Amino acid sequence: MLFLKRFYSNSQRIAQVAKSSKPGDSLSIQGWIRNVRKLKSHTFLDINDGSTSTKFQVVVPKTPENQHLAPGSVISAEGQIQVAPNGSYELHASHVETLADGHLQEGYPFAPKQKLPPEYVREHLHLRSRVDYIAAQMRIRHKAQKAIHDYMDELDFVQINTPLLTTNDCEGAGEVFRVQPDSEALLKTMAKPNVPAEQSYFDEKVFLSVSGQLHLEAMTYGLGNTYTFSPAFRAENSKSPLHLAEFYMFEAELSHLKEVDKLAAFIEQMLKSITTRLLESSSDDLNFCQRNANASSDLAWLNVPWKIASYDEALQILQDNADSLKTPISIQDGFSKDQELFLVSHFAAPVFVVDWPAQQKPFYMKVSRSNPNRVHALDLLMPAVGELCGGSLRESDPSVLSSHPQLPKNLSWYVDLRKYGGVPTGGFGMGFERYLQLVTGVKNIRDVIPFPRYPHSCKM
Amino acid sequence: MLFLKRFYSNSQRIAQVAKSSKPGDSLSIQGWIRNVRKLKSHTFLDINDGSTSTKFQVVVPKTPENQHLAPGSVISAEGQIQVAPNGSYELHASHVETLADGHLQEGYPFAPKQKLPPEYVREHLHLRSRVDYIAAQMRIRHKAQKAIHDYMDELDFVQINTPLLTTNDCEGAGEVFRVQPDSEALLKTMAKPNVPAEQSYFDEKVFLSVSGQLHLEAMTYGLGNTYTFSPAFRAENSKSPLHLAEFYMFEAELSHLKEVDKLAAFIEQMLKSITTRLLESSSDDLNFCQRNANASSDLAWLNVPWKIASYDEALQILQDNADSLKTPISIQDGFSKDQELFLVSHFAAPVFVVDWPAQQKPFYMKVSRSNPNRVHALDLLMPAVGELCGGSLRESDPSVLSSHPQLPKNLSWYVDLRKYGGVPTGGFGMGFERYLQLVTGVKNIRDVIPFPRYPHSCKM
Repeated sequence: MLFLKRFYSNSQRIAQVAKSSKPGDSLSIQGWIRNVRKLKSHTFLDINDGSTSTKFQVVVPKTPENQHLAPGSVISAEGQIQVAPNGSYELHASHVETLADGHLQEGYPFAPKQKLPPEYVREHLHLRSRVDYIAAQMRIRHKAQKAIHDYMDELDFVQINTPLLTTNDCEGAGEVFRVQPDSEALLKTMAKPNVPAEQSYFDEKVFLSVSGQLHLEAMTYGLGNTYTFSPAFRAENSKSPLHLAEFYMFEAELSHLKEVDKLAAFIEQMLKSITTRLLESSSDDLNFCQRNANASSDLAWLNVPWKIASYDEALQILQDNADSLKTPISIQDGFSKDQELFLVSHFAAPVFVVDWPAQQKPFYMKVSRSNPNRVHALDLLMPAVGELCGGSLRESDPSVLSSHPQLPKNLSWYVDLRKYGGVPTGGFGMGFERYLQLVTGVKNIRDVIPFPRYPHSCKM
Repeated sequence: MLFLKRFYSNSQRIAQVAKSSKPGDSLSIQGWIRNVRKLKSHTFLDINDGSTSTKFQVVVPKTPENQHLAPGSVISAEGQIQVAPNGSYELHASHVETLADGHLQEGYPFAPKQKLPPEYVREHLHLRSRVDYIAAQMRIRHKAQKAIHDYMDELDFVQINTPLLTTNDCEGAGEVFRVQPDSEALLKTMAKPNVPAEQSYFDEKVFLSVSGQLHLEAMTYGLGNTYTFSPAFRAENSKSPLHLAEFYMFEAELSHLKEVDKLAAFIEQMLKSITTRLLESSSDDLNFCQRNANASSDLAWLNVPWKIASYDEALQILQDNADSLKTPISIQDGFSKDQELFLVSHFAAPVFVVDWPAQQKPFYMKVSRSNPNRVHALDLLMPAVGELCGGSLRESDPSVLSSHPQLPKNLSWYVDLRKYGGVPTGGFGMGFERYLQLVTGVKNIRDVIPFPRYPHSCKM
């Protein structure tokens, strides 16, 4: 692959230099100057090319033609790799060419070497990838997705691109975005009698998906185990640092699954494995982001067995410790984040809360045959972020499903799936950004996604 | 991984049996009965579990309790692997358990063993994954995506989740979907003076993305090479077998790219490599789909060098052969599909047409400094599907870009990218479904995506 990696350019990425070069090698790099230090006979440049959060130094002779080198400019530098006094590699350049000037004094919002608050950086979204901790986040985001795809593929799961345009709103939670062509002329051309004008493209009201689960189930009934890694949307007026209007969901559906404990075991194995892979591919970037967020780099949950507690046990623990909780306990609404974190701390491990009251959970969850007030559901509670995954066995009996009072109308197709050779299935969903917050310690979800969309903000 | 592959079930997937079992092995499988043949002393079942398009036979003794085995039912079968007279493995079952009845006579639309027209199958979208060629397509789609992610990751490209909600419509082609919260009450809560009521969630008009390119470019200016594999949307009233309202785009942006020929070389290498990987992972499914579509399995383009022709050369060839063309040549509009296929056939290879007239192409393409009527663009023309990729160098001079008459207003951020340490970049986009049509020979794009969305149809 080395040929391919370099075939359209003779330069090496800086991240590769430490891995595949040795002192004395001749090579060329291209990147942005982050910092310039002029000493007696040499000028020292910190160069960044977007491939790593580790500083890379280029040493250039102090000649008249190198006088104008300044932060922000893009250079190409050719020379020889040498070992710096601190032990890392640096490039002693024999030739430096300026490819483009930085023009930072003409309105560039990010002063070099200054610690900038994330709210300020977010205001300049189009330039944000030039800030080191954002670039590191983006590389981590890429590698975490890659780890998920690799893991699921190794286990023979089939990735399904569940649709984003849909005529159902899954859990009926209500807070959906509606979609229609922008062109009035097009709507007019496509008009049909008995169809409201704004619905004439699809002949019905169409929403942006809030979850791919129901579509995934339809596919699992033909393909076996499936998963989706897709955008999802919520039209909520939330300023919370844990919510976005557009975010990514990783959802999987397992066929022939009959016990919620096995689903919990699958999720635990999966999260430990993808996080271990991420630590292997991206430890420098992870450390960089954790330091930048003043977060602990201790992912202790990787090395302990996770716990399973029934809802009743969890509720009892909370009730016994009501004095230590910031929020009142409700048996209608599930747990607050404060309560979730208390449980994680109580068990000194991530904990799956299982066997939930049916009235707290959606229509598709499998009802316990021994106690019809309970469903075979799980919530995974983690340190720092609280709930990370939600899942359940699915109700596989079409008659039980049909008679559920919350079954949305126009979901007869969903009941139909169970009629012809139904199989027991179950699955889970995980908010991908929340996972990234967990591993990087970043407080605001707006900083782990490249282009955050939230109330009153859809820049670019 | 074997432990994990089986830890929530003791059964083996059928696709794995041929790879990891040997005659005499005891194992159990679970799947749907596709066909039942009753002979004298034994019953022969064709079983499918969604993992392969290759038939798998289970031989069961003809006992009273096996009498009721019927197509559509889900069974679990335990027994021993033996070699069938035709040389393939089969399972001689000592124990068969029915997990669920098929109930096919109660309205199941797909009669076993019958060849069903794709238009009919599409009418029953929720059950479609149970049809063998659709399941095979979905597995191919998964493996093709996996090959793209693997390839780009090996080359150190960073995958960026470009946003689907956006305030720009990229090329200004106009046919966009508009997005707003469905809840009038929410819009009212969020209302602001001077913002139209239906825009109050984001304070401006928001569309579904038609391309991630411009956002990708913003990221490339910090990260170097990037790519996106994302849904894209077009509100066109098109019944064409090559268009969907919701489809997937694979787009990449390469930094420090100065020649369009190098972009062509990258695309050729990439497409040959991912297709070779796909042939390795999925040859049975590919052959199955090609046979089902009456398409040739000859991917001759894998083994020849691809051609590059200038727009002027290509136009000359078409003009010299105007008599053989079904459509008139236009110098305003580019080539028709008929003309594209003529060029591919003329060169007996895929062909990159480069150096296009500026007025046929969008504002962001780099203008030739030697001939301002030309831009450094490419179209890749392939057999069967015509145009598969479009790409270009990007205009990197902010003053040239600013003065382009077609530059959309509110894209000042896009010009801004070039101002501070601009680098030469270029990239391409490929319609993923069109690629799947190319390799599987499937005529209608609606059959290579799990849930097709097109005019007057958004089922489920």
